[in-house]
Amino acid sequence: MRIIIVGAAGKAGRAVHRLLEQRGHDIVTVGRTSGDVRCDISDETQLRRMWQQVGQVDAVVSAAGDVTYAPIGELSAANFDAAWKHKGLSQINLVRTGLDQVSPDGSFTLISGIPSRDPVVSGAAAATVNGAIEAFVRAAAIEIAPRRINVVSPSVFTESLADFGDYFPGFPSVDLVDVARGFQKAVEGAATGQVITLP
Amino acid sequence: MRIIIVGAAGKAGRAVHRLLEQRGHDIVTVGRTSGDVRCDISDETQLRRMWQQVGQVDAVVSAAGDVTYAPIGELSAANFDAAWKHKGLSQINLVRTGLDQVSPDGSFTLISGIPSRDPVVSGAAAATVNGAIEAFVRAAAIEIAPRRINVVSPSVFTESLADFGDYFPGFPSVDLVDVARGFQKAVEGAATGQVITLP
Repeated sequence: MRIIIVGAAGKAGRAVHRLLEQRGHDIVTVGRTSGDVRCDISDETQLRRMWQQVGQVDAVVSAAGDVTYAPIGELSAANFDAAWKHKGLSQINLVRTGLDQVSPDGSFTLISGIPSRDPVVSGAAAATVNGAIEAFVRAAAIEIAPRRINVVSPSVFTESLADFGDYFPGFPSVDLVDVARGFQKAVEGAATGQVITLP
Repeated sequence: MRIIIVGAAGKAGRAVHRLLEQRGHDIVTVGRTSGDVRCDISDETQLRRMWQQVGQVDAVVSAAGDVTYAPIGELSAANFDAAWKHKGLSQINLVRTGLDQVSPDGSFTLISGIPSRDPVVSGAAAATVNGAIEAFVRAAAIEIAPRRINVVSPSVFTESLADFGDYFPGFPSVDLVDVARGFQKAVEGAATGQVITLP
């Protein structure tokens, strides 16, 4: 399959890239500051130019999106709005603008994260945007068939425990290799409208 | 209890107002173009002025938020952004700015809707913002205790079937009097972090 990976330079993106390349797929990497194609997917103009450069693909994988963690009393409207713009609307626009670029038996796989279903202190903005993406995926699935769409929702990465472990006390972490397998399952499988929870 | 109802002029808002007044509560109504206090809650400046006018309350009820329904291929980024601004961020800002205005044993009750859990064609923007609000409520609940926060998630209103029934084929509708009871359950009960699904 020809697969585009957005956010390919991030921790999850690199792990997915490695696994899908091992599986023999033809990978196009996209990133804001690195990759085969440069694109900030929160900018719809850049997104449309990206699709012109990339052309047709069989699968779209997104591992992009940063969100501010802070106590709810310290999160500003701007923090929530930035989370929406950079992880929510940006992934939605990736799907909207890519509907005609993905083969009929192709798929989209987005990324969310555990706080939407299992909240943590300081994770309100993350929870909000992850909940948005998961609901979007369920809704989009019934309209874009036969194309498929799923979302991978990982716990804190084992490789990120030094930085983020304190936000997730007692939570099982997930190894990046298993996050990559979650994306593989979505891309090579047949499910649609699913939230793939990890671990 | 002293209760502020935002979106009091809408169908759900009027039904909640009626029931909570029957229950003997002291009601302050808020709306964009009617009510005891005028406020567009999507504008944070107006929100802060509203709280100065309203003062302390025991419960905040929100029944506000319009979202565009259209096939996913016709929904623009602006449609998704408007849904976020007018139903998502606006309700989040109502909570953020109201944290110090609600008594310690008080509560917030927001509104979402069925498409986030049971999607319908043309409901992708609605699903997205409802999913955001539901995840925000779960996350906020663990940080704002002892204050409580819940969200009422109704199916299509029986009283709106003439306008919206075609979007929800075979879905059970919910009578507005039962929607009002959902809000009453959240306000007078003790639960927090819950999505109250109706019917």
